[in-house]
Amino acid sequence: MEINVITLFPDFFTSALHSSLLGRALKKQIATVNLVNPRDFTTDKHRTVDDVPYGGGVGMVLKPEPIFAAVESITPQCPQEVIMLTPQGQRMDQTLFKELSTNYRQLVLICGHYEGIDERVQNLVTREVSLGDFVLTGGEIPALTLIDGVVRLLPGTVGKQASLEAESFEDGLLDYPHYTRPPVFRGWEVPEVLRSGNHGAIAHWRHQKQLEATQKKRPDLLEKQEIISSSDKSLQ
Amino acid sequence: MEINVITLFPDFFTSALHSSLLGRALKKQIATVNLVNPRDFTTDKHRTVDDVPYGGGVGMVLKPEPIFAAVESITPQCPQEVIMLTPQGQRMDQTLFKELSTNYRQLVLICGHYEGIDERVQNLVTREVSLGDFVLTGGEIPALTLIDGVVRLLPGTVGKQASLEAESFEDGLLDYPHYTRPPVFRGWEVPEVLRSGNHGAIAHWRHQKQLEATQKKRPDLLEKQEIISSSDKSLQ
Repeated sequence: MEINVITLFPDFFTSALHSSLLGRALKKQIATVNLVNPRDFTTDKHRTVDDVPYGGGVGMVLKPEPIFAAVESITPQCPQEVIMLTPQGQRMDQTLFKELSTNYRQLVLICGHYEGIDERVQNLVTREVSLGDFVLTGGEIPALTLIDGVVRLLPGTVGKQASLEAESFEDGLLDYPHYTRPPVFRGWEVPEVLRSGNHGAIAHWRHQKQLEATQKKRPDLLEKQEIISSSDKSLQ
Repeated sequence: MEINVITLFPDFFTSALHSSLLGRALKKQIATVNLVNPRDFTTDKHRTVDDVPYGGGVGMVLKPEPIFAAVESITPQCPQEVIMLTPQGQRMDQTLFKELSTNYRQLVLICGHYEGIDERVQNLVTREVSLGDFVLTGGEIPALTLIDGVVRLLPGTVGKQASLEAESFEDGLLDYPHYTRPPVFRGWEVPEVLRSGNHGAIAHWRHQKQLEATQKKRPDLLEKQEIISSSDKSLQ
């Protein structure tokens, strides 16, 4: 997969794209990330990327020309998705990451900044995606989130496929509690069942804990799926 | 505000914390960010931070001792919040950013990694926070998101206070469309009203566009607030 990020702050990404699992995946060329700066596509002496808003108001608005030129500098590959990172968009979730990792060969991610982007840039965009109901300095963090979430689903990034499947949200439930050594730490013990060696009992305990955590913290996930079997009704 | 990040990948943050508005705010010492690596608090030769899970399963679990030692190496300041970044937590939003930026002097952010963190680390945690219903390589991106969202609300980060107030979510609605020069770009014109100089008409148009965008893309925000006045009922 080829990922192109349209950003005025390419330096933002440098260390994050070299760190941890994502860094290793990019080094193995499971995906490539190209950082494209609209400022490199300006034609005036001051390399202007923003201007005052029509109709007044505080702050500056990103001009359409450098962003169009930046996006159009990318050799298109199909299937392609051009994503604007904005609080106005579809909420990012695991389903979106799966869809993007499976269906597309090329992503173009447009990061906003300043007060906003000229509305006419929407003509380039095939999808608006939001990281959540909050305001950040720019679209760089949402773009990085999307890159991390999508790249880790590409074959070869995460060692064992089972590791992906056992995670939160893969079965619509929150994760179960994890424990490792020592068996007793500051008086807190690892639950007896996990040390029992009884695989059936462990699987049952973990599933119960998943249901309990989901019921307590995210009941909406249970409602969405109607997956509570009759044997688990006591939890409701 | 002092922000401490407990992370096995401090290098992840380097360039992001030096970039853009966040970089400038940290340079101005509006906030300080300390990166604390649990690996520096291990006592064995191999500097082990993880171990196999009790009860079996793929992947490794972060051990409790290095994380306790890392958190306890921080000189506490009150009021303090110790936040675990995890998909199990309360969803990050603008209200949380405001609360944290207003009420706390010190934040400790614990980033998970690998399959999970030993459950006993919960005894350190005052709040679990989630970036969304998806799985990432680790808690570093969620921690960075929280830092950016909180620091930009601290006095002095964003130049004009009006700039913060005009943004998405500040009034419970999505933002209105922005336009800057040129007045015509590839045949697409800036709406006439924005070039009229009629401030009342511009304010009305922008508010209508906010309502339209919110109704179309995020009707849940309107329902939540019951802010639709009778004059706007035609939008429903």
